Amino acid sequence: MKKIGIIGGVGWPSTIEYYRIICEESQAYHADKDVSGPIPMPEISIESLNLNFSINHRGSSELGSWDVWDHYFNSAIKRLETCGAKVISIASVTPHARLAEISKGSTVPIVSVYEAIGVYCKSINVTKLLVLGTMPTMTSPAFITGMRQFDIKAFTPPLAEQKDNVVAIIGDLYQNKTSGAGVSIDEVIRQCIPENELTNTAVCLGCTELPLAFDKFKAESSFNVNGVHYINSTVVHAKSIFKACVS
Amino acid sequence: MKKIGIIGGVGWPSTIEYYRIICEESQAYHADKDVSGPIPMPEISIESLNLNFSINHRGSSELGSWDVWDHYFNSAIKRLETCGAKVISIASVTPHARLAEISKGSTVPIVSVYEAIGVYCKSINVTKLLVLGTMPTMTSPAFITGMRQFDIKAFTPPLAEQKDNVVAIIGDLYQNKTSGAGVSIDEVIRQCIPENELTNTAVCLGCTELPLAFDKFKAESSFNVNGVHYINSTVVHAKSIFKACVS
Repeated sequence: MKKIGIIGGVGWPSTIEYYRIICEESQAYHADKDVSGPIPMPEISIESLNLNFSINHRGSSELGSWDVWDHYFNSAIKRLETCGAKVISIASVTPHARLAEISKGSTVPIVSVYEAIGVYCKSINVTKLLVLGTMPTMTSPAFITGMRQFDIKAFTPPLAEQKDNVVAIIGDLYQNKTSGAGVSIDEVIRQCIPENELTNTAVCLGCTELPLAFDKFKAESSFNVNGVHYINSTVVHAKSIFKACVS
Repeated sequence: MKKIGIIGGVGWPSTIEYYRIICEESQAYHADKDVSGPIPMPEISIESLNLNFSINHRGSSELGSWDVWDHYFNSAIKRLETCGAKVISIASVTPHARLAEISKGSTVPIVSVYEAIGVYCKSINVTKLLVLGTMPTMTSPAFITGMRQFDIKAFTPPLAEQKDNVVAIIGDLYQNKTSGAGVSIDEVIRQCIPENELTNTAVCLGCTELPLAFDKFKAESSFNVNGVHYINSTVVHAKSIFKACVS
């Protein structure tokens, strides 16, 4: 197994999910193998960053405004390389919008969440995808562009008010206010997808908080609730990281 | 906050506990502070090792037999130093028995679980301590010696059969067989401590699996069940790591 590197801490609960899923995948992978001693695990380096620093240094559209933020993530990736990581990943969707900048100078392959979602959606014949996530995820073109190479037409909530609603739901979930969150997500979705399009459009829960609204499905890559087909980006991404480590 | 380094993966579920407790401690620490943005977290480097490799390379009493094992942990500590960790810790009790060997050449202070337990026990006036843990923890003199400087008389189950029982309970808990584990632990304890000594002797759950037998107390540094005063080494150690990071 190749050594895995993870940029974590943005935020910390999702880092736990990624780490747990990777270790459970290793348990499943070795279940039918003849092993002496405890089940082997990949070695994993985690660089857990300070979300407060990262959010307070987000840039704007101004040239150079992301320099500090880019450097913060880029130097963490470099540390993972120094520790011998052969497969690197970021345990959060949002920073992927600046993947080109933060991976500059790194020679270790990064398992992108876009690619993981694209491969997975293609494998289950999803061709249209509504992406819900943080404001940077919904306003940057990166996710939509990333899906295009898999012939998936991705889109985000078209109205500012709808995006604000998603961000408000994420804020509540971050404080563990899960009651009613599933219904609120369903409401936003029905504003974005016409009833007759629901069967051929999936919804990507594209940040780690959103799956908390559907706790009993939290271990599933995808699931159906009230006629909506959800994709859990955390599970899909973490599983693809383990896959890369044994490939 | 100083950057924290953690040797993890031995085993992985306890690494999650340590990481979670440290992050929750940071949340509690910042609760009454005026902070802009999300609650600040210490930066944390985790080197998660492969428990299979580590257990298969445990030495014996033969000279040089621990060389590979020592090097495995020592080089991980060096990587944490390279990543800038200013406070280093091992998220497992067992490797502490060889702390001198695995910290060789490191200049960064290591927050020892023995010291954390010693300071905590002293603060709540515990002077006698039965230590339950893995076989290396119960057979090495390291834990007992570590307690002596805090005027705590530590001891392990005296009979080989009692030690075997503890190891068997840990094995069950590792496979998530929690049913009846609390009762089994209680039985071993009553074989090791006479009834009239129970009120002035505490019991250290000195490995991460044992607290799983008392799930509703898993966030507590110490708790009482059926007249036994338990100390949870994971909670005590993780809290002392956060304390070192803000001191």
